[in-house]
Amino acid sequence: MSGGALRIVPVSLPGRAYDIVIGRGALAGAGARIAALGSVRQAAIVTDAHVGPLHAAALEAELGAAGIRTTRVTVQAGEGSKSYAKFAEVCDALIAARIERKDVVVALGGGVVGDLAGFAAASLLRGVRLVQAPTSLLAQVDSSVGGKTGINSPHGKNLVGAFHQPSLVLADTALIDTLPARERKAGYAEVVKYGLINDAPFFEWCERHGGAVMAGGPELDEAVAASCAAKAGVVTRDEREDGERALLNLGHTFAHAIERIVAYDNARMVHGEAVSIGLALAFRFSQRLGLCPGQDATRVSAHLAAMGMPTRLSDVPGGAGTPEALLEAMAQDKKVAAGKLTFILARGIGQSFIARDVPPDEAKAFLRAEMAGE
Amino acid sequence: MSGGALRIVPVSLPGRAYDIVIGRGALAGAGARIAALGSVRQAAIVTDAHVGPLHAAALEAELGAAGIRTTRVTVQAGEGSKSYAKFAEVCDALIAARIERKDVVVALGGGVVGDLAGFAAASLLRGVRLVQAPTSLLAQVDSSVGGKTGINSPHGKNLVGAFHQPSLVLADTALIDTLPARERKAGYAEVVKYGLINDAPFFEWCERHGGAVMAGGPELDEAVAASCAAKAGVVTRDEREDGERALLNLGHTFAHAIERIVAYDNARMVHGEAVSIGLALAFRFSQRLGLCPGQDATRVSAHLAAMGMPTRLSDVPGGAGTPEALLEAMAQDKKVAAGKLTFILARGIGQSFIARDVPPDEAKAFLRAEMAGE
Repeated sequence: MSGGALRIVPVSLPGRAYDIVIGRGALAGAGARIAALGSVRQAAIVTDAHVGPLHAAALEAELGAAGIRTTRVTVQAGEGSKSYAKFAEVCDALIAARIERKDVVVALGGGVVGDLAGFAAASLLRGVRLVQAPTSLLAQVDSSVGGKTGINSPHGKNLVGAFHQPSLVLADTALIDTLPARERKAGYAEVVKYGLINDAPFFEWCERHGGAVMAGGPELDEAVAASCAAKAGVVTRDEREDGERALLNLGHTFAHAIERIVAYDNARMVHGEAVSIGLALAFRFSQRLGLCPGQDATRVSAHLAAMGMPTRLSDVPGGAGTPEALLEAMAQDKKVAAGKLTFILARGIGQSFIARDVPPDEAKAFLRAEMAGE
Repeated sequence: MSGGALRIVPVSLPGRAYDIVIGRGALAGAGARIAALGSVRQAAIVTDAHVGPLHAAALEAELGAAGIRTTRVTVQAGEGSKSYAKFAEVCDALIAARIERKDVVVALGGGVVGDLAGFAAASLLRGVRLVQAPTSLLAQVDSSVGGKTGINSPHGKNLVGAFHQPSLVLADTALIDTLPARERKAGYAEVVKYGLINDAPFFEWCERHGGAVMAGGPELDEAVAASCAAKAGVVTRDEREDGERALLNLGHTFAHAIERIVAYDNARMVHGEAVSIGLALAFRFSQRLGLCPGQDATRVSAHLAAMGMPTRLSDVPGGAGTPEALLEAMAQDKKVAAGKLTFILARGIGQSFIARDVPPDEAKAFLRAEMAGE
């Protein structure tokens, strides 16, 4: 399969359809593609202090050549920017730049920038156009697609935000080359997730080609496209997470709790690493509940570990706290309904399902056993 | 017409239909009506320091009797609470109360509380249910209906927010009795607006019954119901303000600029007073542009003035600044497209239309003439 051509994954939401453009050089066509949205006079590029210096100037030149004026808004890199204060700062910067309803906000960065800029675009004038230009693997395969935007509260992650679909996603896979290995691996956890949710053959493909994906071969484009297509399918069927979309949270109830325990300190754990542990835990928990064959749980952990990713609570630098603290952190998660814990569990690889009333005691006993190294 | 029975105005948005319940005692049925939404375990009542002590306890008792747990979140009264900081505070209070997706946020107060609590409900977990319980005439006839929520930026009013339709609106007209006369009059400006937009017979009804509306007779219920029905019609046809809904901004481009000039100081000018001046200005501007008969512009000002409301820029305590400052304030408004000023103008009473490219020079000349008392 050639790595040269761009792939386009359409997201066919009624009235808000958009394209995900994937491949090496996807950003080079940004000017023409954004101009083609129509009536765009201005673009505000929201980026962070790491990504901006690397990629913003090229994007600005692209947009300028297409007759689109640009402004740049730079925030600090890192999860700390998903705050109420930064939300206010970005909104005010967009207002000061006089961004109008048909203008675009371009989120150039990883998941943090996408979530923050996305929520600002959703809220500015009650909604202006958003273009996602994800620069991390994690953002390309997950957060830039599907319209979830938001910030963190001191009480927990992503608790405040909006559903705001982008008008365009430009996933330039050449940008992944320059990512630190740790970030590439972390993003890969979300790729594997799509196989685990409902596509066993894709998980097998990952087992065979994970190394090539990580090395940035043509398999990388294929993995990003397959991930985006999987997510687009789910989002099209259930935009607001009334049902099926919750499956995308496989591993995430655990992951969010772990991130809370480490106080969102990226030096200790980035989101994708927490997801990697979360995926392994979801399968082991399913196994413990008698739902999933042990060999499937083992295979999940084995592949993640083979790719150099963490799979156990003991892999959390500085420790993952107590079972009680983790459980309390889970109870803060959005995926709580009527006080009951909701987990995404699995009957096997590619056979995930929503379990809406997992007894907290079962979860606690499982966490205790995990921590005891059983 | 009886003032005893409740009136119900349905808002028939596909998938998000809701009722506006209007009349004396509408809040007394709050428990049963909110419980009837289904799966409501908890209600967070967001109110302000004026309204809360008067009405929150009765509402809490109502909800308690229906088996719904309540929390109360109280903010300072006044426009100052429509800030980024209060938004964060209310969101965090709702999270701390563990409001879940099917629980409700009840906005008990005037437009400020409705807008602030509404934006928090829209954003919390990317959207929880909202019940509007408007306690001011202005909120009952305008801001509680139609789903616009938001806060102010230092750059201008309502520049950050969301479209978030309520699940129910409870407009208890008995609460209007206790409002200061100034607040009642201010709300009445929005009632008159509906006649001016597209319903000349309703404007004539206002001319005949305005006094009775203000006195709180059965005509008050009729005015609120007619206003809600008018707004519901517009919102159903154009929820996102791509077209017709902009007509609801009649008078508001001027009003927002005036409010900006007085720095949102309610002691100088409340929103409804600014709207009253704005309506009179919109008709006089239309007259000046040769669009509207002078007698219609005169009739508009005469009725507003007869009801004790301001109709001239010179009525702004402390003055309305310079024409340049007002124009600059207008250019900050959301109703700017491609740098051109959009006004709602009129060819006569009940014949408003959207004018998308009013030359700024015409507007400046008009404002200069108004200020010179021509």
